[in-house]
Amino acid sequence: MVNETQHTCSASSSSKSDGGSSSGSESSKDSSRCSTPVLDADRHERLREKMRRRQDSGDKWFSLEFFPPRTANAAVNLISRFDRMGAGGPLFIDVTWHPAGDPGSDKETSSMIIANTAVNYCGLETILHMTCCNQTKDDITGHLQKAKRLGLKNIMALRGDPVGEEWEEEVDGFNYAVDLVKHIRNEFDDYFDICVAGYPKGHPEAESYEADLRHLKEKVFAGADFIITQLFFRSETFLKFMKDCQAIGITCPIIPGIFPIQGYHSLRQLVKLSKLEVPQEIKDVIEPIKDNDAAIRNYGVELAVSMCRELLDSGMVHGLHFYTLNREVATTEVLKRLGIWKEDPRRPLPWAVSAHPKRRVEDVRPIFWASRPKSYIYRTQEWDDFPNGRWGNSSSPAFGELKDYYLFYLKSKSPREELLKMWGEELTSEESVFEVFTCYITGEPNKNGHKVTCMPWNDDPLATETNLLKEQLEKVNRRGILTINSQPNINGKPSTDPIVGWGPSGGYVFQKAYLEFFTSSEIVTALLKVLKKYELRVNYHIVNVKGQNITNAPDLQPNAVTWGIFPGREIIQPTVVDPVSFLSWKDEAFALWIEQWAKLYEEESPSRMIIQYIHDNYYLVNLVDNDFPLENCLWQVVDDTFELLN
Amino acid sequence: MVNETQHTCSASSSSKSDGGSSSGSESSKDSSRCSTPVLDADRHERLREKMRRRQDSGDKWFSLEFFPPRTANAAVNLISRFDRMGAGGPLFIDVTWHPAGDPGSDKETSSMIIANTAVNYCGLETILHMTCCNQTKDDITGHLQKAKRLGLKNIMALRGDPVGEEWEEEVDGFNYAVDLVKHIRNEFDDYFDICVAGYPKGHPEAESYEADLRHLKEKVFAGADFIITQLFFRSETFLKFMKDCQAIGITCPIIPGIFPIQGYHSLRQLVKLSKLEVPQEIKDVIEPIKDNDAAIRNYGVELAVSMCRELLDSGMVHGLHFYTLNREVATTEVLKRLGIWKEDPRRPLPWAVSAHPKRRVEDVRPIFWASRPKSYIYRTQEWDDFPNGRWGNSSSPAFGELKDYYLFYLKSKSPREELLKMWGEELTSEESVFEVFTCYITGEPNKNGHKVTCMPWNDDPLATETNLLKEQLEKVNRRGILTINSQPNINGKPSTDPIVGWGPSGGYVFQKAYLEFFTSSEIVTALLKVLKKYELRVNYHIVNVKGQNITNAPDLQPNAVTWGIFPGREIIQPTVVDPVSFLSWKDEAFALWIEQWAKLYEEESPSRMIIQYIHDNYYLVNLVDNDFPLENCLWQVVDDTFELLN
Repeated sequence: MVNETQHTCSASSSSKSDGGSSSGSESSKDSSRCSTPVLDADRHERLREKMRRRQDSGDKWFSLEFFPPRTANAAVNLISRFDRMGAGGPLFIDVTWHPAGDPGSDKETSSMIIANTAVNYCGLETILHMTCCNQTKDDITGHLQKAKRLGLKNIMALRGDPVGEEWEEEVDGFNYAVDLVKHIRNEFDDYFDICVAGYPKGHPEAESYEADLRHLKEKVFAGADFIITQLFFRSETFLKFMKDCQAIGITCPIIPGIFPIQGYHSLRQLVKLSKLEVPQEIKDVIEPIKDNDAAIRNYGVELAVSMCRELLDSGMVHGLHFYTLNREVATTEVLKRLGIWKEDPRRPLPWAVSAHPKRRVEDVRPIFWASRPKSYIYRTQEWDDFPNGRWGNSSSPAFGELKDYYLFYLKSKSPREELLKMWGEELTSEESVFEVFTCYITGEPNKNGHKVTCMPWNDDPLATETNLLKEQLEKVNRRGILTINSQPNINGKPSTDPIVGWGPSGGYVFQKAYLEFFTSSEIVTALLKVLKKYELRVNYHIVNVKGQNITNAPDLQPNAVTWGIFPGREIIQPTVVDPVSFLSWKDEAFALWIEQWAKLYEEESPSRMIIQYIHDNYYLVNLVDNDFPLENCLWQVVDDTFELLN
Repeated sequence: MVNETQHTCSASSSSKSDGGSSSGSESSKDSSRCSTPVLDADRHERLREKMRRRQDSGDKWFSLEFFPPRTANAAVNLISRFDRMGAGGPLFIDVTWHPAGDPGSDKETSSMIIANTAVNYCGLETILHMTCCNQTKDDITGHLQKAKRLGLKNIMALRGDPVGEEWEEEVDGFNYAVDLVKHIRNEFDDYFDICVAGYPKGHPEAESYEADLRHLKEKVFAGADFIITQLFFRSETFLKFMKDCQAIGITCPIIPGIFPIQGYHSLRQLVKLSKLEVPQEIKDVIEPIKDNDAAIRNYGVELAVSMCRELLDSGMVHGLHFYTLNREVATTEVLKRLGIWKEDPRRPLPWAVSAHPKRRVEDVRPIFWASRPKSYIYRTQEWDDFPNGRWGNSSSPAFGELKDYYLFYLKSKSPREELLKMWGEELTSEESVFEVFTCYITGEPNKNGHKVTCMPWNDDPLATETNLLKEQLEKVNRRGILTINSQPNINGKPSTDPIVGWGPSGGYVFQKAYLEFFTSSEIVTALLKVLKKYELRVNYHIVNVKGQNITNAPDLQPNAVTWGIFPGREIIQPTVVDPVSFLSWKDEAFALWIEQWAKLYEEESPSRMIIQYIHDNYYLVNLVDNDFPLENCLWQVVDDTFELLN
């Protein structure tokens, strides 16, 4: 007889004839009707659940701590660092709280806004630190409400440093981190995951190590979900601390804080702030090489790697938390050497997902913003519903306008001088613009010897996938088909394919060939004649800055251009060519000529007038080859167009 | 410059910078977001629009008239005739109104219920006739409300025959069809499409031909959308009538009513009722052969074909309306000879769509009811929303119970005696049940020489598609894997493929291999061991009548098993294996053993006890091979299972 218990559920029947119990029948029906076929459990789990799942699966993880930068430019750099370090697959990042820096404000350098950017625009699970001393309950509640509104889900509850020399308890105020933990649980129930700090050597101000352990236990019992520790220099320190915690009944995850020594001065400063003692054996190595930054960093990496190995080998540690000091190299190297930096983490969807809780059902986007995902997120941030399974299903997907191209998280990583070197100090003709596009595609230096590593529509070098099309792209850009987005056709590659794969393993991914470009009205006229031959195969949208729109899309329906078939799932179609959003994209794509490029030059200058001319007269064209199993015909369409023109 | 006007729309831009007009921008956005990616314009158009579109495209069409049968058994037969004649692609059918037969009642022989069945269960665009004389406004309004509730959208407004010898106008009553037209428009605005009758020779009671034309014009001007004519015997009669109508300003479509002579007596009766004169040249042919039914029918077909050709060749006629007298052969032959019977009309979706207006967004169904679509429609008739794009998206898709397996439109076409011949007058063992399944698959006669052309789960012979799997199906049924549903895997066949194709041309269709069967617990135990080897590839649901359910489906999500990729469209996934609906299907599938099979035998008889034993002890199993590009592994799974048992 069948006696499998795995996966067995005794479902009650709705038939009258079987006489089975029927309690719970309705609820089981409801629960199985999930609202979206989203593939990645990560998007639905809270941080503490992810942590638990990784621990259960034996899968080691890491996290990264950053502090808010002092200037807006540094914020731009930090965001691109988030993107790069996010590619290694941290379980979360955290952003420290700087009471002196107006941390809850809307300034681009505030803790709140940096954390907001990490969650919403970089798609990183993020913990926002918050300190409570010298603040009123209303202040704290206001910060927490704002954090919740911005989609932040995790708080690191800290006391913070006393302002004056002598710190005194305030009656009815927040005197300890435990007060903040209680306040969060009182006011926000279980909404936030709460992290608290542990001190492997005891807090410097605690009466004793034992007393500090008891404080920690209080924080956990008040509602904290896990603990991150202060840095330490020997693995024994942490392991002893962990055992001591367990001995007094602390059972939540305790994550060791790792500080790779990156320089003599930063070490001294940190040690001073944290009132820690550097062990003599480390001092002995460092003092003689204190002026050799590279040597110290190498030593710091070695030291961190060997300590982390000891921690992981102990079997008691599942995740490592890194104090990065906003630097990239040392931490990345430690992680790579430990083998827990995931060079190419599996993509749940072809585009980078946002970590805002309300976007967890988002599973389809227009292809147009493929290279500007942060702008797409910005312009859809007020949406209550995300197109769910099908693009057309959204209740009110009006796109917010993109008025400020200089929002720090949308800004180009490159300063004006660099852009001028790449895009030309002086433009002499439309052809000199073609040349810039061509150099971006080929990766060859321009005539002044500068590589073109970004374009107004694309702040990064060409994607690996686009590289597949490089040869053809070069040819057409040289002739004035100025490409800004493209993808090859794919007829059922495994979902684990390193270049085009996404989603869980065991599936197959597909694409229709796509090509999007600016071009002159002369070329468009020829193109339209050619397209008549391809009427049943190629869908097109052709629009100028005034909104004159030529298309053969049936009933203005969206066209799915990327989809995946997975075991036991519904079809996922994460990318569409949507005629309606194309008109919103059109505004942005044309505006980028002016905002990012023309404005580099003096008003009335010939260079600026050339860009303005293109902006005013060119058309934005997108083409989809619907016959994905056949060879991509879009290059033939372009060739035919040039032939017609000759 | 670009001067294409075709497909050009001047879309206003939402950018402030272009200064273009912005009127209409919001509404154009709304209208382009259609709520469902349904493929077939037919499902969204009203009858008058379909008629207009067919006329514009030059595509000739036909329609079929039926009357409500007298007995419940005849109703069952008529419904299967609807299915067969529906396959030829009529633009609509119409059902006459029999005042004497309680036409608005819930009886299975009422006009209302026959029309309801045609629309909802056979998916046919349907016109319900309605006569008004001798009826109160409230009666009529009640009938119309009921028709609307049932999803009927078209009414043929008639006066009806007076009851007594001498007919008198009633004050404030319905005296003419025009009164009914006005009443429908007053009470139901533009909801219904309205058809009225035209008399090519003038109405027999009209003062004159001209007076009758004026009455017709009144009916059209009161709100009728098109005209169907009384039968006639010469094409000139109709063409003259049509010109006369146009001459007095009647511009709506006028559809000639064609009556293929099918027998001497039916002709005489019809002529008497309609007070028409049979032309002498026809009488001359018919009288000598009046006792030779076949000869008369052949003559009738010839006559109808040549008259229809004359009508179509005139260029004034786009559609032909056939008075079928509920018979199939003559009309079908005329249509085939005219070349307007569409042997294999393109399927908009893999399953037969219902014509109820609220089901026009329905685009996904569980695979389980593939052979019992009427039962699925019945059990989901109370749904307000249909799963839209994704199965899991429906708001409240509880399945209505199927209590009455004898509803006339769900009933087997075969009477009890025939079923006994097919399924065995006497069963001696489980193996004799296996034998019945095997004969159904092979098409070979059973040991008593009777072919098994239907099963409780499938009222029709094996589908062409299933025939592809015949050899393997035979082998496994012989050994007690009693298959009730299956489909082969398909990796991108053209949507025009005659066997597995569906949807518009230019697309590609895909399927995952599917197999569903009843089998013993012994086989299930072995199967589960084998399935461990296929864990990542094969999804399974295994359930017994008590609802014990074994599955490896992730999170009970639906698994798409049929999907299509089309030019300029979103992905369509019309068939899913849905774990929740499987439990509703399970009740029905198990009940069919008892309701359709066991109950053929005496209570306590050995035959009945064998079926009862299977019902109580067997499992219902479904298997999906997710790896659709590879060779179907489900046969290997079954072979491995048998090997393990040996």
